[in-house]
Amino acid sequence: MIKHYPNGVPFQENVTAQSGSSFHTAPAQENVIYGNRGMSLEQEINLSNKYYLENGIAVIHKKPIPIQIVDVNYPKRSAAVIREAYFKQASTTDYNGVYQGHYIDFEAKETRNHSSFPLNNFHDHQIKHMKACEKQQGICFTIVRFVTRQEIYLMPSHLLFLYWDNQSNGRKSIPYDQIKKESYLINYQINPRIPYLIGVDQLIQKLKMP
Amino acid sequence: MIKHYPNGVPFQENVTAQSGSSFHTAPAQENVIYGNRGMSLEQEINLSNKYYLENGIAVIHKKPIPIQIVDVNYPKRSAAVIREAYFKQASTTDYNGVYQGHYIDFEAKETRNHSSFPLNNFHDHQIKHMKACEKQQGICFTIVRFVTRQEIYLMPSHLLFLYWDNQSNGRKSIPYDQIKKESYLINYQINPRIPYLIGVDQLIQKLKMP
Repeated sequence: MIKHYPNGVPFQENVTAQSGSSFHTAPAQENVIYGNRGMSLEQEINLSNKYYLENGIAVIHKKPIPIQIVDVNYPKRSAAVIREAYFKQASTTDYNGVYQGHYIDFEAKETRNHSSFPLNNFHDHQIKHMKACEKQQGICFTIVRFVTRQEIYLMPSHLLFLYWDNQSNGRKSIPYDQIKKESYLINYQINPRIPYLIGVDQLIQKLKMP
Repeated sequence: MIKHYPNGVPFQENVTAQSGSSFHTAPAQENVIYGNRGMSLEQEINLSNKYYLENGIAVIHKKPIPIQIVDVNYPKRSAAVIREAYFKQASTTDYNGVYQGHYIDFEAKETRNHSSFPLNNFHDHQIKHMKACEKQQGICFTIVRFVTRQEIYLMPSHLLFLYWDNQSNGRKSIPYDQIKKESYLINYQINPRIPYLIGVDQLIQKLKMP
């Protein structure tokens, strides 16, 4: 029987013995970081972006949630309070910014599916937006986390477009094997936690090739 | 005495006589458009961005206002209502996007000042953000409207940085003459109303020069 820590990480009785003198090896480190400490993919990407920003590597931000404000109170001597507002559907993707002269634009999505990534994670206007950005030579992709596999991929948008545009064939998801083959696996690190710009570098190299 | 229409446009008694047979000449047209029909600079830029997007010229959006949500109601059978939220200070500029492979980042500001543009239109983090974007080869600028002059300039960020970084000298604004000399005048058009990408083209050309 596998026991678990309260944070969901499996308890390994022999982990101390195993790591012992090899405290800095990759597997031991990965075990710790894979626990995620309850962080969502979004939180981890935000932290990674903070690292990239503070180290002058890239300027990439999550966009605020679009909101329709209906009523605002302006109390004396304190901050304005929004008293009635509604969530609006975003017309673009969640993240964008600039990296070494490249415009960067992406979505971040998690799935508990094991063998495919469902296309209903996207809205039509997000696909339209990414297509428009690519036409302007922007670098567009999705960061996909397969929760049950503990794997993160940087999936180039051409793969997403291919399956999106052929949904009428009946296939409503992108097979895991296809993503694994055509995307860039992003391994967790200490800092930045999700070093996705490594995948961006590879994608840019590939796009440059004739 | 000058009379005004309810929308603030000055009434010109002789305008019909003047335009008469020259309905399509530039001056008459400009009179109409300069009235702005009560539109803010922001609304006009949003319309221009819509034109650029729909015509496949560029993908540039205004970012949503950042908000700290405290309380949300989820009524049955209707949309979630935000019942308590506060405005947060933006950590970036208002607009960004991609145009012909270039990352574009800017603020839009109006001033009723006649002879200078006050630096208190900006916050420190916006300047920081623009500097970080330029380091990544982004194209950064401010669209400045001098309301009393009915003139719009695309002001490159280097001019803003110059005056911002030297505020300790006591000068808290950028002189109009300096802006006129170092920026790109954007003339109103029918569509897009503010064709600021013409100024961006000129700025990119200039940045390319050694």
